[in-house]
Amino acid sequence: MRGLVHKYGGTSVATPEKIKNVAKRIIREKEKGLDMVVVVSAMGKTTDHLVELAGQISQHPDERELDLLLSTGEQVSIALLTMALQEEGYEAISLTGFQAGIKTVGPHTKNKIIDIDIDKVKDYLAEGKIVIVAGFQGMNELGEITTLGRGGSDTTAVALAAKLSFPCHIYTDVEGIYSVDPRLYKPAKKLEVISYEEMMEMASLGAGVMEPRSILIGQKYKVPIYVASSMNQEKGTYIKEYDGTMEEKVVTGLSVCDDILMVTISQIPDAAENMALIFDKLAARHVNVDMISQAASFEGLLSVSFTAKVEDRGAVQAVMDELDPQYHVCMESEISKLSVVGMGMRNQSGVSGRLFRILSDHKIPFRQVTTSEISISYAIDRLDKERAVAILSQELNL
Amino acid sequence: MRGLVHKYGGTSVATPEKIKNVAKRIIREKEKGLDMVVVVSAMGKTTDHLVELAGQISQHPDERELDLLLSTGEQVSIALLTMALQEEGYEAISLTGFQAGIKTVGPHTKNKIIDIDIDKVKDYLAEGKIVIVAGFQGMNELGEITTLGRGGSDTTAVALAAKLSFPCHIYTDVEGIYSVDPRLYKPAKKLEVISYEEMMEMASLGAGVMEPRSILIGQKYKVPIYVASSMNQEKGTYIKEYDGTMEEKVVTGLSVCDDILMVTISQIPDAAENMALIFDKLAARHVNVDMISQAASFEGLLSVSFTAKVEDRGAVQAVMDELDPQYHVCMESEISKLSVVGMGMRNQSGVSGRLFRILSDHKIPFRQVTTSEISISYAIDRLDKERAVAILSQELNL
Repeated sequence: MRGLVHKYGGTSVATPEKIKNVAKRIIREKEKGLDMVVVVSAMGKTTDHLVELAGQISQHPDERELDLLLSTGEQVSIALLTMALQEEGYEAISLTGFQAGIKTVGPHTKNKIIDIDIDKVKDYLAEGKIVIVAGFQGMNELGEITTLGRGGSDTTAVALAAKLSFPCHIYTDVEGIYSVDPRLYKPAKKLEVISYEEMMEMASLGAGVMEPRSILIGQKYKVPIYVASSMNQEKGTYIKEYDGTMEEKVVTGLSVCDDILMVTISQIPDAAENMALIFDKLAARHVNVDMISQAASFEGLLSVSFTAKVEDRGAVQAVMDELDPQYHVCMESEISKLSVVGMGMRNQSGVSGRLFRILSDHKIPFRQVTTSEISISYAIDRLDKERAVAILSQELNL
Repeated sequence: MRGLVHKYGGTSVATPEKIKNVAKRIIREKEKGLDMVVVVSAMGKTTDHLVELAGQISQHPDERELDLLLSTGEQVSIALLTMALQEEGYEAISLTGFQAGIKTVGPHTKNKIIDIDIDKVKDYLAEGKIVIVAGFQGMNELGEITTLGRGGSDTTAVALAAKLSFPCHIYTDVEGIYSVDPRLYKPAKKLEVISYEEMMEMASLGAGVMEPRSILIGQKYKVPIYVASSMNQEKGTYIKEYDGTMEEKVVTGLSVCDDILMVTISQIPDAAENMALIFDKLAARHVNVDMISQAASFEGLLSVSFTAKVEDRGAVQAVMDELDPQYHVCMESEISKLSVVGMGMRNQSGVSGRLFRILSDHKIPFRQVTTSEISISYAIDRLDKERAVAILSQELNL
């Protein structure tokens, strides 16, 4: 079988008119002789509307019920898209998550795909049908309808592509992956290609186009992914395995993350268990701690800084309230994180030196630094963000 | 198990506020120690809205896809009602049609329930949970989501009640079954009780409160049905097996049906096969022919009148166009059908005489008459309808 998985997000199917346009895009591929599987999200703001309805009934709606409620959004869009294809004279069939054989595990609203019974999809493809699958949803072994959480439809699409050995095209409201968010730096360049590893760093560090989990599946099963706009025919970005040709570029992108909470705790008596206790308590409250830096002990007292999401502020505050009152705690929320990402950084030394030099020359103070094998991240004051993005983008030719 | 099935229609769950009220009604029964199974329709105008969406994509949307689309309406309301019960501190769980084990057969959009795998519902009841089931939907043996057509949620409710040996309460936007539609005759009396047979005649003859198919299931499995308002605590109407106590009343009700098309064909050569051909052709086009009356042959030529639904006008016209052009055809659509229904008419003669006398005394001409064992129906001009309803209701003390 030669085929292709397409995925369209909510804005791409927000109205009947847009659904008809999506149908035409699918038909263009079908006419090339490709077997087509298409994953769609709920129309426009449907999911938000359903969450709001639930909120009018309960402050904390049961998550099993929430899954059953939210899964209707995609069920509506698959039926309508299928009708649009049939209206154009093509054979098509819609499948809900469970009808498409998508098996999931985990807690409701945050399920993970564990496997796909792909036979039904293959049978319909063999009959010449275009198969339209509801994104974001599946069924667990108890026969409960489940949803996959943020970025769930991308995950559905890449997982189906993996199972079918098809490439996966993600059509969205941006034209591809940019080295820097064009809303922050207008001259930002669109990338022709990016490796899974870089994309994962970019995604988890805030690029926002695709969720890291779908990239992880893509990497594991070597699914060629292509991200482009659903609104036009502009060339998008390929996400694929790293190869030598990408090496020339040391730095691929700069990703920016706002809504960072930076916490500094000082006056901690210098003992490993004191530090362990703090991070144990944060973990117990499911706070996702990101950057951690600890200064050397001074007069037997330590200080440590870490960042978390602003949305976890309540949980962080609760942990701080439990600490020894002699500790000094400072929480700041007007913080942004800038991350420079590039596979080339693995082998090339000197990138960090260059970055420190740029920031120093332009008098941009940074509060924390952390590094991974292919990235360096700086926590800076929000006020300095725009200037820092512009300068780094220019200097690194992004 | 001692339990009860409740069914709430779309207007009863049209808003989060109304859903919360329905939850309170269910809790009152649960607190009496009853196992509760609740069937709900889609919220308010949801189904109409979904049909309209489909209509914007296709003039004749595929019926499989339409089923998948429409079934989302009930899925939303079961999740929300379940959340409302949980919010009040009660254990509850929602089940889509297929999760509740509702197996169906037939063409899409018009499926019939063939059986219910009731174990899952029973298990949840045994755990003390209130079970909320999506009305109007099920799954066929291919694993396709199906819907049950008009009155489908009533059918779901009565079928579940039959399977569980529970009574079934249908809560709706009317306060029960009236001897005559109160919108047509204000002083109409609400019936305390009506037999399945009478209700079926009333339903199929146009009373509009319940679909005949759900009554048929109720009769077959002897499910006591109770119809009342979801908005207040007023006493409603019991639908149950006929017993002697109901006999005293000869006439139970008067049902009225508008949108009747009356067709008269004359100049037909007197041969049985000519008549057969006409009705064969009507059947082939799925025209539901209701009243038929044939006048005696005159000079070797016959004439016949029949009624059908106005919505079948196109199909009827197509048949008429195929007939021998020497036939004379007259189609009238400003026709209403009045039907007088009562179990007592089985044994009591003289009812028809009395009815003819009333119509004659008040100079109300009728165009056709047909009778069943427990009913007499008259086709009259729409213009005479209101006067005829008032006079018959008064004279028969309805």
